[in-house]
Amino acid sequence: MTMYTPHVARENGPLYKALADSIERDIQAGTLTPGERLPTHRDMADALGVNVSTVTRGYREAEKRGLLSGTVGRGTFVASDAVTSSAMVSFEPGAPGMIEMGLIAPLSYLDPDVAEGFRRIARRKDPTTFLRYTDPRGLPDHRQAGALWARLYGLECGPEEIIVCAGAQHALTCCLAGLLRPGDRLAVDSLTYPGLKSLASMLGIRLAPITMDGQGMMPEALDAACRRNDIKAVYLMPGVHNPTTATMSEPRRDEIARLAEVHDLIIIEDDAYDLTHPGRTTPVSDRARHRAVFVAGLSKSLAAGLRVAFLVAPPALRKPLAQAVLNTIWMAPPLNVELAAMWITDGTAEQILEAKRAEAARRYMIACDVLDGLRFRGKPTGFFCWLELPAPWTGAAFEAAARARGINVFGAEKFVVGDTAAPAAARLSLTGAEDIDDYRQGLWVLWHLLTRKD
Amino acid sequence: MTMYTPHVARENGPLYKALADSIERDIQAGTLTPGERLPTHRDMADALGVNVSTVTRGYREAEKRGLLSGTVGRGTFVASDAVTSSAMVSFEPGAPGMIEMGLIAPLSYLDPDVAEGFRRIARRKDPTTFLRYTDPRGLPDHRQAGALWARLYGLECGPEEIIVCAGAQHALTCCLAGLLRPGDRLAVDSLTYPGLKSLASMLGIRLAPITMDGQGMMPEALDAACRRNDIKAVYLMPGVHNPTTATMSEPRRDEIARLAEVHDLIIIEDDAYDLTHPGRTTPVSDRARHRAVFVAGLSKSLAAGLRVAFLVAPPALRKPLAQAVLNTIWMAPPLNVELAAMWITDGTAEQILEAKRAEAARRYMIACDVLDGLRFRGKPTGFFCWLELPAPWTGAAFEAAARARGINVFGAEKFVVGDTAAPAAARLSLTGAEDIDDYRQGLWVLWHLLTRKD
Repeated sequence: MTMYTPHVARENGPLYKALADSIERDIQAGTLTPGERLPTHRDMADALGVNVSTVTRGYREAEKRGLLSGTVGRGTFVASDAVTSSAMVSFEPGAPGMIEMGLIAPLSYLDPDVAEGFRRIARRKDPTTFLRYTDPRGLPDHRQAGALWARLYGLECGPEEIIVCAGAQHALTCCLAGLLRPGDRLAVDSLTYPGLKSLASMLGIRLAPITMDGQGMMPEALDAACRRNDIKAVYLMPGVHNPTTATMSEPRRDEIARLAEVHDLIIIEDDAYDLTHPGRTTPVSDRARHRAVFVAGLSKSLAAGLRVAFLVAPPALRKPLAQAVLNTIWMAPPLNVELAAMWITDGTAEQILEAKRAEAARRYMIACDVLDGLRFRGKPTGFFCWLELPAPWTGAAFEAAARARGINVFGAEKFVVGDTAAPAAARLSLTGAEDIDDYRQGLWVLWHLLTRKD
Repeated sequence: MTMYTPHVARENGPLYKALADSIERDIQAGTLTPGERLPTHRDMADALGVNVSTVTRGYREAEKRGLLSGTVGRGTFVASDAVTSSAMVSFEPGAPGMIEMGLIAPLSYLDPDVAEGFRRIARRKDPTTFLRYTDPRGLPDHRQAGALWARLYGLECGPEEIIVCAGAQHALTCCLAGLLRPGDRLAVDSLTYPGLKSLASMLGIRLAPITMDGQGMMPEALDAACRRNDIKAVYLMPGVHNPTTATMSEPRRDEIARLAEVHDLIIIEDDAYDLTHPGRTTPVSDRARHRAVFVAGLSKSLAAGLRVAFLVAPPALRKPLAQAVLNTIWMAPPLNVELAAMWITDGTAEQILEAKRAEAARRYMIACDVLDGLRFRGKPTGFFCWLELPAPWTGAAFEAAARARGINVFGAEKFVVGDTAAPAAARLSLTGAEDIDDYRQGLWVLWHLLTRKD
């Protein structure tokens, strides 16, 4: 086997950056593949005719970019998720002929009547308010509606605690850019939301993957990671973990909150799918309010295109978060927030939520029926499930085989962080296909794929 | 004079960070003031009982955060703009009783009729489209409208070149976060848009201030800065520079474009006020299309609250920019963009623009009349002007004195970058006060303040 040698001569700028750049390019090009071991610092230095310290710096730079992961005594490896962040999102959901079981569409055909919403706003006394610059935290009425919405998630709060954002992804942007600095470490589940991975990578925030069990993040593992490294914050989805659908018990939530206290962590809790199932356990944030930022989104439960989410933030974090809203978008567009606030206040939002849960329940029943004999986890009203794959399948192989049969699914590799080994599993969206016959057809094809006896 | 000694013992984490943290806190608290010289590395090390290298690292960290600026042979100083970024934005424009001549409000009482806009969208066949996830680059019709809008700025382009953003500030976020990395250097005018300073500071992007003359950024100074340091991109406002209202000549634009080529710079051109005056000179971007990202905003000329702007981007930069849209907000809310696209396509937008120019011209005439005898620069249809202050005024002193008389203005200090010395000047918004009598009254008070013979 020939040793990997990057072509650094073509690059500009300092050598260590050129080395990181060419590693990045080779990963993008597929010359270097996830899990591959890189030459030792000394071998690489000899091959390139440079100092060992330059290679060390270059590898460290590549590690910062999420490309490599090193384990003391084992060597340096291409990170398992090095290629997935850029490839993770299809810009064109619903590619012609494909049945979408990868992206989780929030059953948007059940969304509220937007034409009716417009007509109501048009009748207002002074709708021009919505075309002006406003407080980046949001208009008073909108923050009031945000407090009502947060209550559905089990958080009692007042409007002064609310900061209006342009959707949950934007809320995460404000948390990561406003509360952390480039180079800071954020603890996450070892399988986590790809949109967070991609955002953190862009902002230079380092992710520390924490081992999970059937309840999600393991407190002992979080504790150990905090002792090993300086960790600033922890990202949590305790209600419905994406992608595994795990739910944290009350004692586990208490313990995570206690550890956040012990290690002085900011809690970022973004339980996007928590409202999709009925029955609330209070959020981890409620157990450590002064250090927790809670993302109360509504894309999954009310309407994704509005791009509205509410942050519930403690006094000490409100100023940097409001500044981050200002820095990134000045303010969430008040028009959209007005629509959301109207629907939240008049009860439309809860009706829509109920309708979506009922439709999700119907789809989940179909999945249970069709996928008989396969192992999967999900909520009875869930928008997705986590499918364990029989040997010798890997998530990536299953994803490729499904795609060849006209079905889009997401292998576990899209969710793994750093050098976590990807389990043989895939996330199955139950709501991606609008048409119920397509949906059923997709499930059947996947069932055949996994159960055929060749 | 006693030597400045920070209290670093209270901090957690590595010592160098603790040092930077306490410098930051002392600047916020006013214990350290802009321009103040810090102890030498050795003196500080002795005072704290730590290694010189720890102090060097701490100072460097503080410099990265935009707090300090060092000049070889002269020492280390608190940056002129160290305190302004967090204080720069009033969250509550129009504080009771204050006449607003600081913030530039885009004459929003001339904005289009939003109620009528809503009614038209409500009559569409399928307005629910606007509640769904879409391509982060924007819907096809919206990108088409973006191309029309960019044409008003003097850029001929097709819809495939357009990426829809949630306002110009968001477009800048996508440029800085998507095209640069933390630690990268961005060349800017030595006086620049505060929203860019604040964003760059949050993202860990370092600003390299470039000396200006009456035409804006000086090519020789840009060239020298690129030779001295590795600079990745340059931020430009060639039509109406904020805050000085300077305009770049054609030859100067050619020369800056040529230098961008020589030094392999990405051009980020965000000429927010360029449409407020009639008569176009083609953008610098048009002279180097393959390396230029042009921000075609509409907050100043059409409606700020919509939060819509269009990026015109070359092929090589479109993917990272679209990914940055996705990472930060998933997509600009299609509803708002639909309103903007409708107004752009049916000609409403150009009518509004004309009406705003006419009102700005009227206000500018009033300013010329009232401020007789004072030196100021502005466009005949401009939304703001740049007022030179007679000795011994400084911008900050004038800002404070004006505020004491119930008028909000912005001293030059809000715009300076790094260790640039702030000129004795202030930016005067001509559109902040809605009421024309308030506006005239504000101008009179400022005139008296600057011309009184005590």
